[in-house]
Amino acid sequence: MSEVRVSIVGGSGYTGGELLRLLLFHPQVRIQQVTSERFVGKFTHKVHPNLRKATDLRFVQLAQLEPCDVLFLCLPHGRAMHLLPELQRKAERIIDLSADFRLNDPAQYAAWYGREHTHPEWLPQFVYGIPELHREAMRGARFISSAGCNATATILALFPLFKNDLVVVDRSVVEVKGGSSEGGNAPSEATHHPERSNVVRSYRPTQHRHTAEVEQELCIHGPVRVHLSATALDLVRGVLSTCHVFLKDDLDEKTIWKVYRETYADEPFIRIVKEKTGIYRYPEPKLLIGSNFCDIGFEKDARSRRLVVISAIDNLMKGAAGQAVQAFNLMHGFAETTALEFPGLHPV
Amino acid sequence: MSEVRVSIVGGSGYTGGELLRLLLFHPQVRIQQVTSERFVGKFTHKVHPNLRKATDLRFVQLAQLEPCDVLFLCLPHGRAMHLLPELQRKAERIIDLSADFRLNDPAQYAAWYGREHTHPEWLPQFVYGIPELHREAMRGARFISSAGCNATATILALFPLFKNDLVVVDRSVVEVKGGSSEGGNAPSEATHHPERSNVVRSYRPTQHRHTAEVEQELCIHGPVRVHLSATALDLVRGVLSTCHVFLKDDLDEKTIWKVYRETYADEPFIRIVKEKTGIYRYPEPKLLIGSNFCDIGFEKDARSRRLVVISAIDNLMKGAAGQAVQAFNLMHGFAETTALEFPGLHPV
Amino acid sequence: MSEVRVSIVGGSGYTGGELLRLLLFHPQVRIQQVTSERFVGKFTHKVHPNLRKATDLRFVQLAQLEPCDVLFLCLPHGRAMHLLPELQRKAERIIDLSADFRLNDPAQYAAWYGREHTHPEWLPQFVYGIPELHREAMRGARFISSAGCNATATILALFPLFKNDLVVVDRSVVEVKGGSSEGGNAPSEATHHPERSNVVRSYRPTQHRHTAEVEQELCIHGPVRVHLSATALDLVRGVLSTCHVFLKDDLDEKTIWKVYRETYADEPFIRIVKEKTGIYRYPEPKLLIGSNFCDIGFEKDARSRRLVVISAIDNLMKGAAGQAVQAFNLMHGFAETTALEFPGLHPV
Amino acid sequence: MSEVRVSIVGGSGYTGGELLRLLLFHPQVRIQQVTSERFVGKFTHKVHPNLRKATDLRFVQLAQLEPCDVLFLCLPHGRAMHLLPELQRKAERIIDLSADFRLNDPAQYAAWYGREHTHPEWLPQFVYGIPELHREAMRGARFISSAGCNATATILALFPLFKNDLVVVDRSVVEVKGGSSEGGNAPSEATHHPERSNVVRSYRPTQHRHTAEVEQELCIHGPVRVHLSATALDLVRGVLSTCHVFLKDDLDEKTIWKVYRETYADEPFIRIVKEKTGIYRYPEPKLLIGSNFCDIGFEKDARSRRLVVISAIDNLMKGAAGQAVQAFNLMHGFAETTALEFPGLHPV
Repeated sequence: MSEVRVSIVGGSGYTGGELLRLLLFHPQVRIQQVTSERFVGKFTHKVHPNLRKATDLRFVQLAQLEPCDVLFLCLPHGRAMHLLPELQRKAERIIDLSADFRLNDPAQYAAWYGREHTHPEWLPQFVYGIPELHREAMRGARFISSAGCNATATILALFPLFKNDLVVVDRSVVEVKGGSSEGGNAPSEATHHPERSNVVRSYRPTQHRHTAEVEQELCIHGPVRVHLSATALDLVRGVLSTCHVFLKDDLDEKTIWKVYRETYADEPFIRIVKEKTGIYRYPEPKLLIGSNFCDIGFEKDARSRRLVVISAIDNLMKGAAGQAVQAFNLMHGFAETTALEFPGLHPV
Repeated sequence: MSEVRVSIVGGSGYTGGELLRLLLFHPQVRIQQVTSERFVGKFTHKVHPNLRKATDLRFVQLAQLEPCDVLFLCLPHGRAMHLLPELQRKAERIIDLSADFRLNDPAQYAAWYGREHTHPEWLPQFVYGIPELHREAMRGARFISSAGCNATATILALFPLFKNDLVVVDRSVVEVKGGSSEGGNAPSEATHHPERSNVVRSYRPTQHRHTAEVEQELCIHGPVRVHLSATALDLVRGVLSTCHVFLKDDLDEKTIWKVYRETYADEPFIRIVKEKTGIYRYPEPKLLIGSNFCDIGFEKDARSRRLVVISAIDNLMKGAAGQAVQAFNLMHGFAETTALEFPGLHPV
Repeated sequence: MSEVRVSIVGGSGYTGGELLRLLLFHPQVRIQQVTSERFVGKFTHKVHPNLRKATDLRFVQLAQLEPCDVLFLCLPHGRAMHLLPELQRKAERIIDLSADFRLNDPAQYAAWYGREHTHPEWLPQFVYGIPELHREAMRGARFISSAGCNATATILALFPLFKNDLVVVDRSVVEVKGGSSEGGNAPSEATHHPERSNVVRSYRPTQHRHTAEVEQELCIHGPVRVHLSATALDLVRGVLSTCHVFLKDDLDEKTIWKVYRETYADEPFIRIVKEKTGIYRYPEPKLLIGSNFCDIGFEKDARSRRLVVISAIDNLMKGAAGQAVQAFNLMHGFAETTALEFPGLHPV
Repeated sequence: MSEVRVSIVGGSGYTGGELLRLLLFHPQVRIQQVTSERFVGKFTHKVHPNLRKATDLRFVQLAQLEPCDVLFLCLPHGRAMHLLPELQRKAERIIDLSADFRLNDPAQYAAWYGREHTHPEWLPQFVYGIPELHREAMRGARFISSAGCNATATILALFPLFKNDLVVVDRSVVEVKGGSSEGGNAPSEATHHPERSNVVRSYRPTQHRHTAEVEQELCIHGPVRVHLSATALDLVRGVLSTCHVFLKDDLDEKTIWKVYRETYADEPFIRIVKEKTGIYRYPEPKLLIGSNFCDIGFEKDARSRRLVVISAIDNLMKGAAGQAVQAFNLMHGFAETTALEFPGLHPV
């Protein structure tokens, strides 16, 4: 099988670094270029020091970008939509890891991102980047828009329930807890170590932008409302989404097991984690550091119709670069787990 | 003013250690005895090493307990109810820091703690230990039962809303996040450092026992239901309670401000924390380490009637020993803040 | 006793914030002004959020500084030396917390700080700020220069040995380990949470500036050489100095005990920590968070003449603001422990 | 190439879990059995939850061990020496990860481990398990004894210097800093999260057992003495060894570079890390989590002949399971990096 020539646009950030790491070990990929305006000419391992000895690639300018087979875009939100008309001439296929093409409805951009989408005509061409929901559309897709990390964890947690129309549609409360790598690599007072350490910071009690993606993907049987909050923890990697939903019928756990099994039985990157004993009875993000798994568990409240669904991911993997490579593999007909075999560590 | 003679029963745990620390610096207190069966004869600073040079007290056996003015009980849950008949002969006043006398209704013990209360006849004599709700009853009280840490944070967050009957009574979802000191000082696999570090552990998705206290204290205008979950974080001290409530009327934030101010304006240990800028816009438990404050903030969801109320405490202070000393001060007519002046640290 | 009027110049940093916290609770102090050019007009508790409800002081400009009794200078290194001629007209006494007046020999500034001292004529007027070494000189001193945090921990660890001339003078190796608050409150890539978390960062393997202070204070019986390295850990507060010295004679631990006891027996802020059992057998910085103690322990190597001396402090307390208040108390004849009674927490 | 049948004896600990993880993804290996007396019959992924979905192997008893090609022994120290006579009949080759066969001189066992070696006759048959020092002996070796984690980091840091006889032999001071996974998976008060968090714990100021290995491997030109201390940090994985050596001649950094390059230029798992700029100028264990690299850097003290050499590893990888697999690869003539390609993560 011939190699796919891949370039990464905006490769100096955390997501770009993870993509680079994964693709360097992908047997069907040759990395052609990695761009960074800030670090042009520098070794990529200067910025991503875990890649010392793994690559001698240097950053190039976007202006130097050459044609290739696939472009991964790891630009700050708002940049990809401006550049797409130009970039799509460089490569047959594009996987965008920003938020710029996640929402189907242009009106939602104004509502959640506070500005109009500059190129709404491209939105219908993008497949929303969660393979478990859009696998068939991804095979042969030209454009894929990678999903938000908190959105991925939440959507995968709740999809089987909403697909089967089991949930009261306006009562779901979701508490997402995440680490500091979600915020990218730009220092600020908020990320200064003495301030950011030990926090349980309510950084978005309401109006988290990923809400829009979650509601878009879950409105399978009509409009839904998800009440989402996000709290920042003293972690670098990891997302735990704790989803409180209220069931239409008072289902028992066995029935819920069945729902999840039916939806996810053949998924290579989803594990149902629900044990009666031991210290890892529910999904735990620390076990997923470096892995592409989304672990999902649940507990039914005996006193009410509340079901608590819990999901965990590595925000830079299943929440960003890993899921993008999974989509890439699907696009090209490669084994879906290629370059994504790392199972995570214990203890860590 | 003459000194109050105080003894601590079960003083080798974390709560007992904090009580000892606070009372050593209380100008109206003389600590008479501290009991521990395991460490009898040893210096208290051997177990509580922060108290080196602060005290030469040694642990004594419970059997050696002498009469005193006030007993603080820091026994494991289930022990105080057995010992109360005997202990109440040793001291005029008792402050119990276990769960044994928190619930007014004996039936709730069977429901939440899985066993019948052995001395339900004592329950009516205990004042529930949150001064902000029961200050008058505490003055001159003989028995006080200190509130649970997660319960304290949640009750103080929601009390003004439920007191004013502003909330839909069965829809509240509460996510409590806490540190490892909540679990006491007994090692186990679950608390082994390589396992417990970096966790975002769903340790009680449903059926958390503190739910009973929360519902008891908030059922001011009739029965309420609180859907509470608890997640364990990689912290030693600190609780953040994120409370999602749904308002009966679509109140604006100004009105909610007013409700909180009216309820808590004169409270020495409550601060409303809600800022538009900066990195500490909401309550943050790390700022409260060692302090007796409960910080409370909120954000109204512009899209719905959801109000997110956020509260933070130090679980060993306002959630245990600090609140017990606050109650002690009220009992005796001392200034309520005596020995509780420490404001917390920054950065930490 | 009448109040001492105190102002803090440069009060928006971590050291200034700690000073403000300590002095607010000092019974003989009235804080007159706190300056900050950046935050002028803002509440001090906006920058130091632990002081909410503790003070309503607002920052003023340095240009607005009024005469007072004592000035604490918390300026960046290099600023105080320029301002001293002017500032010494504003107050009878000055305690400087920067490095600008620590070294007696102006030549050392050029050697270690890479620039000439602009006002070497003031150096002889400053007392080096470790009370355990310079207590008598402090009583009635006009100018005190607070010691560096790593220097304080190391000097206090080694002073009894060098005072008694027990150590081979050129073989000492010192490994200082510290937290992120040492670096101040300015964000940078190096302090960005995803980068700074989990580090064991060799930030100064050689040429640490505090070496100059250490050698200055230990050259009691002639020149000494201390080989010091500093490693940055994933802590906010705390310094542990591990000092490997080689004894001239093969002394046993009992003799060494005696040396330390003789030197420090009456010191209110020094504790010798050396236990045969338990989990806190040696000094542990986490037990000192918020306290002014310096804990010191040691272990003699049975195979050689190496003696490992270990000391721990809170870098913002005994390493900065706490030690400055201790010096202030001595200057004014107050009880040395005033406002410094907080013993530290356990667990934390 | 036919598969190598491998069994792991004592596979429920952290080292056994890492070995299992690595070998599951080794293309030339079939894992035949994993023993654990405590967990016999349970899924290995119950104990090593990162391996959910990666394997359905269950633990068996040691008594059920069948013949295989290679045995990895992950038993507690002191067990392997008793079992070796029996176990060597089960497999042609054995790699022991305990300390039981590390020291060539039986007398050193009594001196450092406090007991006589029960089978000293086997010691000469074992190759000490650092490939960079004993690669040739490993090819075709029957028995390999894996090196201690702190010893590995220290030996690799200092080997080029001692090999070239550049160091004053009795003055080296080594400060090893490590995480909690070094201590294994048995809970205790010392590892209880509230106590173990945030520590900078002087757990072995002198007499660390790995000293014996370090001195054994470095005494190339005659006896050497290494003054080693170990400090436990609030990390799970990672070792940083900071080695202060004193050069016989006042070499410059360029010469030292050359020494390291000559020794390690072709080593697949050693990287010289020494940069003038950036935030990862020296080896950093967090970048090595999950990887088999040993990063080494140094800084020459301009004031003296001190050279500070710094090395970092993941104690469970290059310090245990990873190095054992590297040795296994050498034994069998596989590419040395097989199953060890994971480069580590950033950020983490």
